[in-house]
Amino acid sequence: MIILGIDPGTATTGYGVIKIPDDILSREFKYDIELISYGNISTSKDRLMQDRLHIIHSELTQVIKKYQPDQMVCEMLFFGANTKTAITVGQARGVIMLTASQHKIPFQDYTGPQIKLMVAGSGRADKNQVHDGVRKFLGTAGRRRNKLKVSWKGGHLDDATDALAIAICHVLKLVNK
Amino acid sequence: MIILGIDPGTATTGYGVIKIPDDILSREFKYDIELISYGNISTSKDRLMQDRLHIIHSELTQVIKKYQPDQMVCEMLFFGANTKTAITVGQARGVIMLTASQHKIPFQDYTGPQIKLMVAGSGRADKNQVHDGVRKFLGTAGRRRNKLKVSWKGGHLDDATDALAIAICHVLKLVNK
Repeated sequence: MIILGIDPGTATTGYGVIKIPDDILSREFKYDIELISYGNISTSKDRLMQDRLHIIHSELTQVIKKYQPDQMVCEMLFFGANTKTAITVGQARGVIMLTASQHKIPFQDYTGPQIKLMVAGSGRADKNQVHDGVRKFLGTAGRRRNKLKVSWKGGHLDDATDALAIAICHVLKLVNK
Repeated sequence: MIILGIDPGTATTGYGVIKIPDDILSREFKYDIELISYGNISTSKDRLMQDRLHIIHSELTQVIKKYQPDQMVCEMLFFGANTKTAITVGQARGVIMLTASQHKIPFQDYTGPQIKLMVAGSGRADKNQVHDGVRKFLGTAGRRRNKLKVSWKGGHLDDATDALAIAICHVLKLVNK
């Protein structure tokens, strides 16, 4: 089963693709999460908002065609955010959700505290703790940890790693159901 | 020039299509706004949010193909709205803006108070005053006024009329530039 995690944003939408065995429910799951890919969809603030959303839609469509995810998961904005942020993130989310529906891929949301709790053990974990959790779940071996660090070529590692955290959160929810 | 006004929402996205002469800037414009079409894109709350956004995208694409608008205009949510509303409306807006970009149609926003001011003469006008303004600008003759009222077959007249108000606001802004 392929899971595509997405951290939505207009400037940068991070994505992370992981794979888990279809029989994960009957396994010791921890070391069976395979890192397939991760990256960012970035758009310039010099472009019109509608064109930035178009870029997100087009590039996300390419990611979906390439990795054929069985599930898409996304971060749900915390309800304390200000209206302007909520609208802007909402616009990116709308495009992401549309893309999921266009490809008939089940779509699910998790809140930030849920993701932190599942991946880092506390709903109030900071970014470093979440990223340590991501590396832990993607393999204790140095090979995979290095892959996650080294293959990154510039840009905001944060957003792609957050996207991986969202995907891992979904796996842990599946396993704990 | 064809203008497509849109009042975004997940449950109901109203749309209104009007036509103005290409030489509107050199004319007495008031009676030259022609009502082409109006209606609602409605989605059931029983469906998944991503599928509702998909319906909005598909139906809006049909409206665009049918009427070939030269401009798309949309209401910008007022910044005092609560976060949940802002995210939900933002999601619908994102899909609408994407659709505009996919068809290379210039897209523009107006706030509620701007629309009320232009169409009803006051930024604090109520719904009835705005709707009266819409009827006024779409012709003083009874024929057109009746057309707007009578051809409506159920549903939320409000959202489609608001969409027409947004389109008319854009015309008035063009003329007053």
